[in-house]
Amino acid sequence: MNEFELIRRYFAACTSSREDVVVGIGDDCALLNPPSAQLLAVTTDMLIAGRHFPLDASAFDIGWKSLAVNLSDLAAMGAQPCWFTLALSLPEPDQSWLGEFAEGLGRCAKEFGIALVGGDTTRGALSISITAMGTTDSATSMRRDGARAGDVICVTGTLGDAALGLRLWQRRSFCRELVNTDLELLWGRLHRPQPRVSAGRALRGLAHAAIDLSDGLAGDLQHILSASGVGAEIRVDQLPMSPAFARATPEADRLALQVSGGDDYELCICIPPKELDSIRSSLDIPLVEIGHITTEPGLRWLDGQGRPLPVTAGGYDHFQ
Amino acid sequence: MNEFELIRRYFAACTSSREDVVVGIGDDCALLNPPSAQLLAVTTDMLIAGRHFPLDASAFDIGWKSLAVNLSDLAAMGAQPCWFTLALSLPEPDQSWLGEFAEGLGRCAKEFGIALVGGDTTRGALSISITAMGTTDSATSMRRDGARAGDVICVTGTLGDAALGLRLWQRRSFCRELVNTDLELLWGRLHRPQPRVSAGRALRGLAHAAIDLSDGLAGDLQHILSASGVGAEIRVDQLPMSPAFARATPEADRLALQVSGGDDYELCICIPPKELDSIRSSLDIPLVEIGHITTEPGLRWLDGQGRPLPVTAGGYDHFQ
Repeated sequence: MNEFELIRRYFAACTSSREDVVVGIGDDCALLNPPSAQLLAVTTDMLIAGRHFPLDASAFDIGWKSLAVNLSDLAAMGAQPCWFTLALSLPEPDQSWLGEFAEGLGRCAKEFGIALVGGDTTRGALSISITAMGTTDSATSMRRDGARAGDVICVTGTLGDAALGLRLWQRRSFCRELVNTDLELLWGRLHRPQPRVSAGRALRGLAHAAIDLSDGLAGDLQHILSASGVGAEIRVDQLPMSPAFARATPEADRLALQVSGGDDYELCICIPPKELDSIRSSLDIPLVEIGHITTEPGLRWLDGQGRPLPVTAGGYDHFQ
Repeated sequence: MNEFELIRRYFAACTSSREDVVVGIGDDCALLNPPSAQLLAVTTDMLIAGRHFPLDASAFDIGWKSLAVNLSDLAAMGAQPCWFTLALSLPEPDQSWLGEFAEGLGRCAKEFGIALVGGDTTRGALSISITAMGTTDSATSMRRDGARAGDVICVTGTLGDAALGLRLWQRRSFCRELVNTDLELLWGRLHRPQPRVSAGRALRGLAHAAIDLSDGLAGDLQHILSASGVGAEIRVDQLPMSPAFARATPEADRLALQVSGGDDYELCICIPPKELDSIRSSLDIPLVEIGHITTEPGLRWLDGQGRPLPVTAGGYDHFQ
């Protein structure tokens, strides 16, 4: 089976059907009909086996996550997902693996209404590169450089679940004492992140700045601070955690997992305090206030009594 | 140095400056302002070391070629290059390699007026995935499915140079008898393909179908025939060859290199015979007639006397 048949067989089905796709997979280029008077939002993420997902992750989960992490970037700009391309290298054209991968990818594509419009497949170490495109209004897109002193810093959902999930996945022969439903929740957070697309859409025009949390709060928030020329104070006792995370994590380990574990794929947003209540009520997921933007530069971590905590920033570094 | 600094340091400069880039590299997504009433043409290609370029190719050439092969796909649709994203995995952040790679990539980007708007860099086996975006009129874009019986089949430039160049590159300690300028030309064709963007633009509205020749004429033309539901006769004595190719290739080897060697990155187009002269005069590169489209399906190869030749089709199969 050559690469063309591969692509046709497995990937033709893993796409949403969209009327704005004039020519889809199968020509030199896809031809797409973007809506008028909208900006195009474009993001690209590459996932490598053993680095961005465990070597023994299921093909379905790898497919889901590959697209979900790109959708998370679109969500952070408040963009509506439209189309994506896939470049896949794999050691051999294993049909069972490809079938499951395409199913996971397709499930995510259909859930978020995004169409696969181009692909390239080749033999090599397992890696997946996806470029996702969406549309957004120019006036209301959320950038990293708009945070202002006094803004409230909030995160969607909970932090640390995926990082804990990864730790438990790697030690899964030793974690029999855990509640099964907790394990499933944490592994679900690790393997099938839910991009906050509808939250991102709801925040347009209200949030001053946003970023998605892929490398960990410490590193990702720093990008907002640098781009906006501001600082921040974060109350670590306010960082939202899931009941499963709280049950399974020793107190001493929580902070590291929550601020630099990575893979959360929640949104971190900076909003004017007066908007907080109305934003909260319009979202379909919890939004938790964790700190505020300051004029003074730097990222300061405070405990429940407002005392400084020596948290190492850094986030997840793909070359460390 | 973490990945963010890497991207900033080396790739910030390897881009054309374009007014339609509202937000470039450095946010969750790029924000782009597409022209109104145009279709978006999107293509993606992944290049793997040792498969799409020799393991010992220079970093500059790898950078150039990675973008050029994507521009070739845009050219085949008659699209105007606008923006691209880069996903790069490499074994280690080798600064000298990255500098040369970025220089080659940037040279190509500037020559074709395309802006780098997003990137992802990670540790892994060397691979480069690029997604290129361009714009085109909906009425005049060239697809694979428009070829009609009676159309003349033409190719730009010459065929076989890159395939011969690869063979000579692999045996370069043995090819001292070759003229140095011939070697340079053939290696240039292998390492720095020239995407036929301006030819593709000039062909809009005139060609019935087009494809770019990446895997070899035999395999690529077959895509047009399958998509259009037609057949073709090709006169192998008409296949254009460069003087360097003619000098360096034994007669018996020429055909295989020209029809299935791959890496030509020329355009293969199907046009109404009456348009041939005016198209030829509007192009900045030679356009050679090599055959014609037939109602009868199948791809038939004929010698100079019109006798059938047993040419194996197939093209280059990335999984063989």
